Order: sequence, then C-alpha cells, then structure tokens
Amino acid sequence: MRIAVDAMGGDSPAMVVQGALQAALEWGMDITLVGQRQVIDALIQEQKEQVACRIEHCPEMIAMDEPPVKAIRKKKKASIRVAFELVKRGEADAVVSAGNSGATLAAGVLVLGKLKAIERPAFAGIFPGEKGDVIIIDVGANVDCRAEHLFHFGLMAEALATTCLNMMQPRVGLLNIGQEGGKGNEQVRLAHDLFKSSALNFIGNVEGRDIFSGEVQIIVCDGFVGNVALKLSEGLTESLIGIIKHAMAGLTEEQMAIHKRKGGFWEIIRKMDYAEYGGAPVLGINGVGIVCHGSSSARAVKNAVKMADHYAEQHMPERLAQYFETIQNQLPQSEN
Amino acid sequence: MRIAVDAMGGDSPAMVVQGALQAALEWGMDITLVGQRQVIDALIQEQKEQVACRIEHCPEMIAMDEPPVKAIRKKKKASIRVAFELVKRGEADAVVSAGNSGATLAAGVLVLGKLKAIERPAFAGIFPGEKGDVIIIDVGANVDCRAEHLFHFGLMAEALATTCLNMMQPRVGLLNIGQEGGKGNEQVRLAHDLFKSSALNFIGNVEGRDIFSGEVQIIVCDGFVGNVALKLSEGLTESLIGIIKHAMAGLTEEQMAIHKRKGGFWEIIRKMDYAEYGGAPVLGINGVGIVCHGSSSARAVKNAVKMADHYAEQHMPERLAQYFETIQNQLPQSEN
Repeated sequence: MRIAVDAMGGDSPAMVVQGALQAALEWGMDITLVGQRQVIDALIQEQKEQVACRIEHCPEMIAMDEPPVKAIRKKKKASIRVAFELVKRGEADAVVSAGNSGATLAAGVLVLGKLKAIERPAFAGIFPGEKGDVIIIDVGANVDCRAEHLFHFGLMAEALATTCLNMMQPRVGLLNIGQEGGKGNEQVRLAHDLFKSSALNFIGNVEGRDIFSGEVQIIVCDGFVGNVALKLSEGLTESLIGIIKHAMAGLTEEQMAIHKRKGGFWEIIRKMDYAEYGGAPVLGINGVGIVCHGSSSARAVKNAVKMADHYAEQHMPERLAQYFETIQNQLPQSEN
Repeated sequence: MRIAVDAMGGDSPAMVVQGALQAALEWGMDITLVGQRQVIDALIQEQKEQVACRIEHCPEMIAMDEPPVKAIRKKKKASIRVAFELVKRGEADAVVSAGNSGATLAAGVLVLGKLKAIERPAFAGIFPGEKGDVIIIDVGANVDCRAEHLFHFGLMAEALATTCLNMMQPRVGLLNIGQEGGKGNEQVRLAHDLFKSSALNFIGNVEGRDIFSGEVQIIVCDGFVGNVALKLSEGLTESLIGIIKHAMAGLTEEQMAIHKRKGGFWEIIRKMDYAEYGGAPVLGINGVGIVCHGSSSARAVKNAVKMADHYAEQHMPERLAQYFETIQNQLPQSEN
C-alpha cells in the first residue's frame, strides 16, 4: 500500500518525517512525503539511515490554529489537501496526518467525499483495553452532536470492528454519567432509545470507569467528551509510566530482570502507551485517513503509517459502505 | 465536628456503616447514622469492634435510579433529606452520602438553600496530581450548563482552594479539546471569554492530558464531561494498580522490600486510588455535604467522613459566601 504522509502537519515535521521513514525502513512501506520539498529534503538528510521515498511538493500548509474548513477551501495547495488528492488520483492508498485534525477531516470530505448515508464522519480512537481493543467514537471530529449522529457513530464502529478488527457482535455502550436509562443530557437520553431499538449488541449506558474494563468493545460519545477521555487516558498512563520508570531507574540489572520476566506487567504498561497505536482512523469518508496528535513522536507516526496500511489493505471504506448498504432500512431519518 | 452519614445510600449500606464506624474508631469522629434503625442496628452488630454512634431513625430512602428532585419532594422522611435536616437544626455539622448524588444535591438545596449569588451548586472532584491536588469542577451535578455556570464553577473552586486548601492564586484552566481560544463548542468558547476578562489566574484552555500534569490546579468543565473524566481516571488507575499488584504477587519478600523502599513509587500509586480521598464536596449550598460513589468501599466512606470534618471545621460554606461577597461586582449578570 502507498501511504501519503502530511510532512508539514504536527508540532514537529522532523518527528513526522522520521516516523514515516522508519516505517519504510522497518516494514518496507511505500511512503510519499507531502509538503515543501526544501524542508523535507533537509529533514531526510538528518536521518541516520537513508531509505527511498517519494516527495510530493506543495507550497502551502495549514497551521494548528487555523479554522479548518475555511483554510482547506482557500489553500488549494495545502499539504493535507494535496495528500488526499493523491488518493483521489489513485497515486496513494491512504493518508496520515499529525496536523490540524479538523483540516484533515475537512480535506478528506472535500476531496474524497462522504460515504452514502453518513452525515457526520468521526474519529475512532482505538484503545488497548485489559481484554482486547476498545473503540471510542467520536474522539474529536464533532463537538456538538445530535442523537442520530451518536447512533451513526455506533454503526460505523460496528462496521469497522466486524470487518477490519475481527470482532464478532461487539458489545456497544453509550458513554454516560450513570448506568440507568434516564441519566445524562437530552442528546444522550434520545440516543439511548435509538440504540435500544436497534439490532446492535447494545448493553446500555457505560461510565468512564468501564472504558478499560473489557466489558464493552465500542463506546459511543460526542467528540468533545471523547477527545477529553482520549487525552486524559494518554496523559494519565504517561504519568504512571513516568512514575514507574523513575522508580525503576534505581534498580540493579538483576532486579530489573525480575521485572521483565514478571507476568507481562511491563508489557501491558508499554502497550497502553498511545505511541503504540499511533492514530485514529477517520470513519465515514471515501478513503483511508489517519489522524495523529500534533505532539506525536516518531514512533507514534510510524505506527499510524502501519495502521493506514492495514485499513487500506482491508478496503475499510468500501466495507463500511457495504455495511451501511445492508442496514439502510434500519437507519433513522435525519433532518439535515 | 458531628457528621451525619446517610446509612441507606450507596450500593452497600454495610460498606457505608463500616466506613463511618472506622472513622469514629480511628479518629474519634462523632457519627450519626441516618436511616432505618433495624437495618443499621444489624450492620453495627456485624462490626468486629464496637464504637459509640448515634442513630437517627427514618423510614424512607431514595434508590439510585429515582428521579432526584421528585423523590426528595415526595419522600419527606428519606434518609438523605433527614441528614440535611440535622444540619439545619444544628444537630450535625456536615453530611456524607454514597447514595443518589442528584438526590443529595436536591436535598441540600431544598433543606439548606443555596449560597447567595450561586445559581447552580456543583461537585468539586479533588484529584491527587503529580504536583499536588487538582480540583475538577463540576464532576456530575449539572449535565447541561451555560457559559456563566462554568464561570461560577471556577469562582467557587478558587474560593475553596484559597480558603480551605491553602492554595495561593491557583491556576485555572478550561477543559477543552485544544489549547487555541477558538476551539470547542459554543458554551466553552463563551466561557473562555468570561474567564479571560476575570481577575482569576486563568491560563486558558487545557486538555485531558493536563489534568495530572500539575500545570493547573483548577479545571473547569460541565458535569457530564467532568463525571466521565473522574470515573475514567479512577477506572484506569484501578486497572493499573491491579496490573501492578498482580505482577507483585509473585515477588519474594526481599524483592517486595526493594519496591517499598524505592522512591515512593508505590506510595504515589496508592495515593491515586480514589478511596484515599473519599468523595467530592458539594459547593454552593448553605452547608457541608460530601457525595461519594455508590460503589464506595468502607475506606472511601471513612475518608469522606474525614473530608466532611475538615470542611465543616474550616467553615467552608461561610467562607465561600464571604468570597462571593467580595467579588460580587465582577459577576456577569445571569438570565435566570
């Protein structure tokens, strides 16, 4: 698969280029770096080991604080827009960006279009839970949602889970502040009813504590709540890893060896490090796009490239479209 | 201080009674258990060590899934309502409840009233951060808020921090999905402007990852987001503690001793266990009330009693009222 990486996105283009090239080096990924040629050339020169990749030059870029939709419409030669155009022209199979995530979404929608039946594409955060992966949707694409949007998020996540992640009848939960049906704000109470009368394996409301319990595989929420939850989990895990590392720094090699042998403890902690999964797929557009944090490390970008490769190989958008084709009579009618 | 504990609230009255009696035993707290005498007597009999406490009998109780306001109005002899009436009559100084938190709030407001200038009381979650305590407000009292409510939450938290928690000019952040001012939904963007033009030490938007970074002492959000964040943090910390305990179970005593000595690592992890702080104070009512999780352990209830004692001794509601008195010309005008 050919992966177009937005080399100008993110807090550090150096990390993005390094991560993309590491994916090429380690896994033989076919990388196109999209952005200002001069900048990219200089960053490639800095790498210890050289590896072949293409460069797609474009002069413009979108900053983290630019209003996404406006910027995408105005800057026709912005790196993230050009990256999606490579997919459109059949010169790439997927896009990875650590840049302005709103602009990534807007570019994906503008250039590739939305899947039929999908009004609001969403970001699916995939967390490593105690008993396997957990999908949280949406983790930041939509800050204000109606109940039907939440319901669509659940359907998209089920489509992703069953077609690309080998989950069978994943348990779906609605993120709320209590388990009882009447809890939460109006949007969530209405969504609860939609889920309850659907064919999904809906287990009802779930709370923040259930995200990592393994009792639920898909957790539905609006993009504001999901984004806070995603970043909170990452921050807290990072803090705890820091504390553990600090404690371990004083151990002798022998003591350290005991740890490494012990029950996979360190392995689990490491797995919870977000850099291990890299990014979140954009669901609902006609193509594969992965959004990463602006502050992504090279390792996070490398793993996001791997994720993009996986979903492109699985024909994720086509399979989502097929899924919605088969369930279209179950969809509630939306007003806009 | 005399603490009225709602003995009928929570998933397990046994845990509540046990925790309250432990607080009496360990710290000499003056406890009144409020609820059905027969049930309470039986639970007291189960305790290993006997300790003196009062019982305030009342026949009714409010279940976790009852609509709070309606239930409080209807059930005049519900344990949580009677507990606040003890405070009203001067027979108790504070209330602790692990029951229906909405009902606790409603009972506090109905029986004791709101502080002047406060339209919406809120729950202040107090988290142990890497560099000291962090207040998250609101953690569940208000699922739908306007911008002015968020601003009031920030003021109440500053009042609490400066008068009862020894914080000087605490840094206040608004929980959002990006650091830039234009990010988030409308409610948060408007609140951003209110905070920015206030006298608070406002550092701008913060993200989920910043909750534990120590860069901010007060984090403002609506009760839906805050409740998810609170429970997520607790669940994740619990998971990690579980993993670590599991890994440690196989260590020899000697290896374990190395751990206990090492840089306070275990100490920090233990401190992050929510049972250590017990509950969240209700800010904005004319009295001291502490809400705990329905699933609270005896240790959590015990620590909530200690927290109630602390805030009652500090005259927290009076000091909050004084604070609002001095800043009343800085308050935005509310519409209802």
